[in-house]
Amino acid sequence: MEASAFRGPAGRTTTGTLSRFVVETGADEIPGAVLVAARDALIDTLGVALAGACERAAHIAARWVEENGSRPRATLWGRALRTSAAEAAFANGVSAHALDFDDSHPGARGHASASLIPAAIAAGEVVGASGREVLAAYAIGLEVAAKIGRIVGNGHLQRGWHPTASVGLIGSTAVAARLWGLEATQLERAWGVAGSQVGGLVRNFGTMTKPFHAGHAARSGLFSAWMAKQGFTADNTIFDEPGGIFAIYAGGDGDPAEAVVASLAKPWEILDPGNFVKRWPCCYSNHRALGGLYTLIEKHALRAEEITEVAIGFLPGGDRALVSHNPKTGLEGKFSIEYVIAAALLDGPITLGTFTDAMVQRAPVQALMQKVHRIRIPDDKVYSGIAGHNEIAVTTPRGRFTLRAERVPGSPAWPMTAPDRATKFGDCTEPALGPAGTVQLLDRLQCCVELADIREITAATVPAHNSLGRTTPGKVRA
Amino acid sequence: MEASAFRGPAGRTTTGTLSRFVVETGADEIPGAVLVAARDALIDTLGVALAGACERAAHIAARWVEENGSRPRATLWGRALRTSAAEAAFANGVSAHALDFDDSHPGARGHASASLIPAAIAAGEVVGASGREVLAAYAIGLEVAAKIGRIVGNGHLQRGWHPTASVGLIGSTAVAARLWGLEATQLERAWGVAGSQVGGLVRNFGTMTKPFHAGHAARSGLFSAWMAKQGFTADNTIFDEPGGIFAIYAGGDGDPAEAVVASLAKPWEILDPGNFVKRWPCCYSNHRALGGLYTLIEKHALRAEEITEVAIGFLPGGDRALVSHNPKTGLEGKFSIEYVIAAALLDGPITLGTFTDAMVQRAPVQALMQKVHRIRIPDDKVYSGIAGHNEIAVTTPRGRFTLRAERVPGSPAWPMTAPDRATKFGDCTEPALGPAGTVQLLDRLQCCVELADIREITAATVPAHNSLGRTTPGKVRA
Repeated sequence: MEASAFRGPAGRTTTGTLSRFVVETGADEIPGAVLVAARDALIDTLGVALAGACERAAHIAARWVEENGSRPRATLWGRALRTSAAEAAFANGVSAHALDFDDSHPGARGHASASLIPAAIAAGEVVGASGREVLAAYAIGLEVAAKIGRIVGNGHLQRGWHPTASVGLIGSTAVAARLWGLEATQLERAWGVAGSQVGGLVRNFGTMTKPFHAGHAARSGLFSAWMAKQGFTADNTIFDEPGGIFAIYAGGDGDPAEAVVASLAKPWEILDPGNFVKRWPCCYSNHRALGGLYTLIEKHALRAEEITEVAIGFLPGGDRALVSHNPKTGLEGKFSIEYVIAAALLDGPITLGTFTDAMVQRAPVQALMQKVHRIRIPDDKVYSGIAGHNEIAVTTPRGRFTLRAERVPGSPAWPMTAPDRATKFGDCTEPALGPAGTVQLLDRLQCCVELADIREITAATVPAHNSLGRTTPGKVRA
Repeated sequence: MEASAFRGPAGRTTTGTLSRFVVETGADEIPGAVLVAARDALIDTLGVALAGACERAAHIAARWVEENGSRPRATLWGRALRTSAAEAAFANGVSAHALDFDDSHPGARGHASASLIPAAIAAGEVVGASGREVLAAYAIGLEVAAKIGRIVGNGHLQRGWHPTASVGLIGSTAVAARLWGLEATQLERAWGVAGSQVGGLVRNFGTMTKPFHAGHAARSGLFSAWMAKQGFTADNTIFDEPGGIFAIYAGGDGDPAEAVVASLAKPWEILDPGNFVKRWPCCYSNHRALGGLYTLIEKHALRAEEITEVAIGFLPGGDRALVSHNPKTGLEGKFSIEYVIAAALLDGPITLGTFTDAMVQRAPVQALMQKVHRIRIPDDKVYSGIAGHNEIAVTTPRGRFTLRAERVPGSPAWPMTAPDRATKFGDCTEPALGPAGTVQLLDRLQCCVELADIREITAATVPAHNSLGRTTPGKVRA
């Protein structure tokens, strides 16, 4: 196709323009920097998923896979267990989001990689796609997810839906369509099928159903693409009005669909604004305030025992995802600014080990949490956890220390360094793969763009010995 | 439990009250008339599903099942193909709703049986439940679905969601929870998981994705119950505010949750108002007007060639589901009052054969459709296809004949007779099972309440020879 063909000329539907972008963008139209950014996202997502595979939510998802016993064509990362592409995408999606340590994208308004990368790798695995094809499919899926997120706006979340589930499903459908060679008209219908599976409730934050949202999006995306390729029919203009998906699910504060779609790949969303990579394994809405706190701790040598009060100012909606004010479990602690602030003051670094039930239930941290308060910053707009700023005020007998936190740690404005990333990857994967397995997987991921077959990577996600912490060996199938 | 324990005492959540009703209602608390009505619903649903299994949507669903190759534990009705409980529920749900010939329930505001019965039979099949247990689970699931439908109101559909998908999912989750022995607290969480899969767009009416809605509800209900039984966590008060599922999905015109839940089984929804059974294999929103037209045809000996105009009056919302004004395919014809009126005038009886592409595309019927017009009946309320009335006016050179149609054919107010039902069942199942297979299956269904194992019924849904029209024998697995 000509480069201009998917740029939304008059008379083409939004659905049709998006669909042609997904299936017709040539491999040579995707800049090298896009593939490098996609490779980095693969590294981060595989890493956090291998850590997440040890979580109870991921164990239950794996049991579901075992129960169904589907034809073994795709890999559950971190397990000696293979299943169908759709069920692998589901289980790996749960693992990827289980720790809430996975990246997010401001345009997609959530954890897009946690569904798109499991979808891309499982869809690629069953057809033996190359590393480059998988990376391209992910970047294109993220491009679509970000555009959909911009159209549904922040109000979509405020109305009660989790974009990781909803926006992720639209993107995952695109990823599978690309890798499985759907025609544009087939993808239009695949999105119609996907449209009837859009969901994901914010109300489930702080439970295992939040990581389920990523798995659900990945699995349903593969399902929708597969069905449409077989000729299953559905509405083929689901992103167009009247009565389309935006009329039902958009928040009222999004950007106009036509303008958003006209900006496809100009610039690529994976480059600008790019993925926000998590420094700490907790909800992203904590990160900017936590980064600001660490700045204050370092600057003023703050100590936990001298704290009288910590006030964290949030713009309207800024702490919508931080649903737990008084957490008692590790999972609840991830969604509690009170806990992460108290833990950082008491313990210093926030790590995977910070979010166990025992750590949250410690008496000193429970006591310190009572001194952390949320303050409302007045504003006419409603913000997500990443947009806007926080105000931090720490009161001690020796003075009151304040900071206006503007930059989000792990974002392009305050990026993780290469050593930071490698440390995070190793911390995440060594419990499952051991040091040698970690090096092998990282090596293959680093050269993903040159791999002839993505199965070189999925093979390296399987522990040489069944080293995964809480697996029940008797239940694992070869 | 005591009979009063689930009647919603102060302090219990709506979610908890519903959950205890599902898992704690004793077998001896379910009246015989409820089981008989459930048995009749099983007969009707199995019948239309065996006819629906020949449809292209059901063939593609069966291919999905073959592609995944899950452990063969449950039966695809009408096929020599077995799979997991969840995938069987999915494929049978698609078959049950594929022809839009399945029953509906005014409380559930859609085709509840098309998801609940596939869910009940597949869930029962894998644990060897008795016929009585399956019937009880279905009746209880329908009770819940009807209450949820009354709470979300007709506005839920008007906002763009298909209750067959959304309400059906909540009910199917209850069905599986009952048959798989979940505790009340586990079902509360199962509904949390299900809540994040609620969806189903009216926009997809007239495509294969409408029958997908029933399959999706059945499959996701089994999945949600299974995950919760394994300990997967989710919000456990999803039917309670603030930010619960009703806040997000209800239409604003429903009944208050507390009052609705207080009326559980008083009387049983399956008895009053009971299921509305379809006389004709098209959208139920056509039926009342079509029944009225047949009354006028009989009374005035109307002939197609003398028609000048047919005006069908709809109350606000009454033709919301009839999305096709100018159908060109058999599937579109099911959602077109213009087509069914024209076909009835031209052909007399409306049968399965009425809804082929060729029949819809006939020149005489296309010409007659142009004479059928929809008229708006002013009213302050918004109605679904079953509530309210229609006004019919047929104009001919020899006069104008009018009728106010109040009763819905197949409803308790105008029920199908026993011979009507048997004729419908045979019309539906003989192409797949042949006459002997039809008699055998009907015999077992008639005595379902005494069957020790529901597998006596599922075994009888498999054709003795692979007689199903469009199956590809090479692809069918033993």
